[in-house]
Amino acid sequence: MNAVVFGFPGNELLVNSISDALNAERGIITIHRFPDEESLVRIEANFAGKEIVVVATLDHPDNKILPLYFLCKKLKAEGAKTLTLIAPYLAYMRQDKSFHLGEIVSSDYFAALLSSFVDRLITVDPHLHRHHSLREIFTIPCHVVHSSSAISSWIRDKVDNPVLIGPDSESRQWVSQVASEIHAPYVILNKERLSDRSVKISFPDAEKYKSFTPVIMDDIISTAHTMIETIHHLKEVNLKPTVCIGVHALFVENAYEQLIHTAANMIATCNTIPHSSNKINVHELIIQELRDTIV
Amino acid sequence: MNAVVFGFPGNELLVNSISDALNAERGIITIHRFPDEESLVRIEANFAGKEIVVVATLDHPDNKILPLYFLCKKLKAEGAKTLTLIAPYLAYMRQDKSFHLGEIVSSDYFAALLSSFVDRLITVDPHLHRHHSLREIFTIPCHVVHSSSAISSWIRDKVDNPVLIGPDSESRQWVSQVASEIHAPYVILNKERLSDRSVKISFPDAEKYKSFTPVIMDDIISTAHTMIETIHHLKEVNLKPTVCIGVHALFVENAYEQLIHTAANMIATCNTIPHSSNKINVHELIIQELRDTIV
Repeated sequence: MNAVVFGFPGNELLVNSISDALNAERGIITIHRFPDEESLVRIEANFAGKEIVVVATLDHPDNKILPLYFLCKKLKAEGAKTLTLIAPYLAYMRQDKSFHLGEIVSSDYFAALLSSFVDRLITVDPHLHRHHSLREIFTIPCHVVHSSSAISSWIRDKVDNPVLIGPDSESRQWVSQVASEIHAPYVILNKERLSDRSVKISFPDAEKYKSFTPVIMDDIISTAHTMIETIHHLKEVNLKPTVCIGVHALFVENAYEQLIHTAANMIATCNTIPHSSNKINVHELIIQELRDTIV
Repeated sequence: MNAVVFGFPGNELLVNSISDALNAERGIITIHRFPDEESLVRIEANFAGKEIVVVATLDHPDNKILPLYFLCKKLKAEGAKTLTLIAPYLAYMRQDKSFHLGEIVSSDYFAALLSSFVDRLITVDPHLHRHHSLREIFTIPCHVVHSSSAISSWIRDKVDNPVLIGPDSESRQWVSQVASEIHAPYVILNKERLSDRSVKISFPDAEKYKSFTPVIMDDIISTAHTMIETIHHLKEVNLKPTVCIGVHALFVENAYEQLIHTAANMIATCNTIPHSSNKINVHELIIQELRDTIV
């Protein structure tokens, strides 16, 4: 393929896999941050007239958006044929509603901004809740890679007799899909907020799953509060030690250490955001989507 | 004036002055940063059909650009008549050239991005070096406020018998203007770089200025290296203790402490970036420009 792949720092594994799989040139890119926090982007490649792939997972997005904008504008100005952004994690999708008066719905404007400077987007399981499709907020073609087959295959390999647990109703979409792929039972917990600090989780059929390994699944693990609360509850109802699976390993502040501290049996995430918990490989799925998209 | 003024955090003094001077409503804005470093902007104001002024000085620009974009897009979407951005300090103007092969000229793309979501810009003495006018890179009307009259007036009040010193040729534009306004002599130093770590500064007529108070002037004080080197040189040639003036008090890392440590007689900056060294008030000049522009 007559393509050049540029990767933001931290995305080297995926860049190398893409380059190997598609026989694409690796573009050299360095991003320097000056002491005044301006960014300087430098690139080396012969890319005029070529398909360009930029790999930049978008956790901690505010600091990445300007260098990404500079890079993409330059590539297009210098004659890139098409510019595909691979953002395995897509930021701002949870801000899809004005939760309080006057709040700006960031998801929509973030999508508009990305749409203004890339030609197409490939991402993995974006957090779609109130928006049903990226098409509602992006004006460029968006290709969504689903991690469920990779997660299913990992559970099949690693977990005996699993029961999938969705910590809340939003997680039903991920949990039910994986459960059906591995022919395992699943339970969506019901969270009732009693006050600011107290949540009541109910799991009426716990007795039924005593011999199963509980596997909690969610799309984004950020503060890990939901996971931790859920693990505590599963302990209270005497289930076996819990396996935790997240698609996107955001793990803000010391969330990962806190989650380990709850004595989760195992924590596994997909490699959409580089993290030591990455055990589930979705890079092949991304490459397949890229192959289908730009060839 | 039928205007509403929104200020980014840190710009309260200028917002209040504008609001008082123009009898404009203060829009309430809060910017929250989540632990995953996404921003949430919330605004309260009745602004449809009104002139909107957004005050956001743009030091440390990368973290500010997304909330600024969200805010401006929302204001326009909700019916703001015109949107004026007041950025007393304008970032990225020093990156006006590809200094090494492959470096992206950020100034041009930064200007293009701002031009895409505000209607006009007011700024104070942008660092124009290779670009001669903001018109070369912005596609919106740009109004430049010159700090020289405020600086001249401050020097007249505070400094006896000044000689203005420009540390390098780039500073000539600021230094010569102020010198002519206060009828003082000025000297532009000649910096010759001998190696990475050694600079030779020559000041042939030093003897002539023994009775004067040297006033070093520059537009941006960032690392303060240039100021510090220059002060050391003025000491070597036995001039009186030096007054340092900068338009924009960037002062990265511990630059301010280092500059104080050189025993500068006095350090004064304009209030384009809030800093404890702000002694020269340019807010009235900005308000005058705003008055001329949007009435």
